[in-house]
Amino acid sequence: MATPTFPPWTLYLAEGTCAQAVHIALIDAGAEHQLRSVDFAAGEQRGAAYLAVNPRGRVPALVTHRGTLTEVPALLLFIAQSFPAARLAPWDDPFQLARLQEFNSYLCATVHVAHAHKRRGARWADDAAAHEAMRRKVPANMAECCARIETEWLHDGPWVMGADYTIADPYLFTLAEWLEGDEVDPSAFPRLLAHRTRMQARASVRAAKAAMAALAG
Amino acid sequence: MATPTFPPWTLYLAEGTCAQAVHIALIDAGAEHQLRSVDFAAGEQRGAAYLAVNPRGRVPALVTHRGTLTEVPALLLFIAQSFPAARLAPWDDPFQLARLQEFNSYLCATVHVAHAHKRRGARWADDAAAHEAMRRKVPANMAECCARIETEWLHDGPWVMGADYTIADPYLFTLAEWLEGDEVDPSAFPRLLAHRTRMQARASVRAAKAAMAALAG
Ligand SMILES: N[C@@H](CCC(=O)N[C@@H](CS)C(=O)NCC(=O)O)C(=O)O
Ligand SMILES: N[C@@H](CCC(=O)N[C@@H](CS)C(=O)NCC(=O)O)C(=O)O
Repeated sequence: MATPTFPPWTLYLAEGTCAQAVHIALIDAGAEHQLRSVDFAAGEQRGAAYLAVNPRGRVPALVTHRGTLTEVPALLLFIAQSFPAARLAPWDDPFQLARLQEFNSYLCATVHVAHAHKRRGARWADDAAAHEAMRRKVPANMAECCARIETEWLHDGPWVMGADYTIADPYLFTLAEWLEGDEVDPSAFPRLLAHRTRMQARASVRAAKAAMAALAG
Repeated sequence: MATPTFPPWTLYLAEGTCAQAVHIALIDAGAEHQLRSVDFAAGEQRGAAYLAVNPRGRVPALVTHRGTLTEVPALLLFIAQSFPAARLAPWDDPFQLARLQEFNSYLCATVHVAHAHKRRGARWADDAAAHEAMRRKVPANMAECCARIETEWLHDGPWVMGADYTIADPYLFTLAEWLEGDEVDPSAFPRLLAHRTRMQARASVRAAKAAMAALAG
């Protein structure tokens, strides 16, 4: 099953972050890999050692045999293209591939960014009152994103792209795990909740959770 | 040169927006297309007619013979894949394609988002003081983005990906045109400025500017 990559790729990640999407996709693809946990509580992502891996100080970063790559949508597409047998993206259909990329771009530039305004307001403003104002709007913004995902994308199911599981699924799943923390009740979005439950039952998701727990523990 | 698409695709755009990147790429690809201007000053992007095109109320949106697509990185990749003869993306090299997508994802989720905090603060907070606090930080954030682009990506040149012009170039160019408005002096970033000047000399960029001026005028 596992296709060898020499040397094995190394995924830098932290628990509870968007990097989980890439971790799950690596397992879905059967890609040999090793994990390195970045300690956010200790601010390790801003330390010199990690900045040598990713100068932007974020996870995920994937160190491959040809160099280091970042940005979730790019990493997901890279994994799908590198492991064609896993059929994680509709390569032969430009329109369907574009729909997949549209969804992942929406997650990255709108949904993830909406969520980041809860704890990372310092990226966009310098004073505490502004951070508090941003934090207050996160539940409404995340609920709006969920409503859009529910009506614009999840109508066919069981997966984001319809019948076929793709790299959009672990990405949506990972962001959907943030909802309760963002004060959004996922039961208001039944298709999204069903998708999350369906993902939790997958072997790749369980394997990713177990590997992450072992690393953190 | 122009490869026919039946019926021709329709690009919804507005002057001075990220949609210009897609417009230039359509011309670079030789893709037959028509333009529809969305009047931002009149709030047309939030009107029922445009929401029927893109329920998220943003440009660009590309209406194709198979349906409507949005999100700049997805549209750029779609154009590159649909017009392979134009060689706008390194399809046969997963690592190079991932580097390209990484760059475009950074532009979409970080650079464009940093810029949007100047005029679109209402997306992320409800009070005027917070909008003002966000606005104040835009010049520093955009300058930081420029510094990263200058050192992490533009070292080989003449194009973002090195010797080959790709879909990353019209995207970078379009965002780089925002710098003066965001109170960033582009001369502090000589490679970025040289890239912008190089782009301005391209026939596809001149054609896009002329078509947009004719539409607006
Ligand atoms: N656009 C980037 C965003 C990456 C990102 O912001 N990751 C977060 C975790 S979800 C992070 O590393 N935050 C650390 C920090 O802000 O210090 C991507 O999609 O990979
Ligand atoms: N992530 C989207 C962002 C699109 C976007 O925000 N477009 C802006 C123009 S640069 C817009 O339509 N703004 C209109 C508004 O906010 O009302 C993409 O990359 O296409």
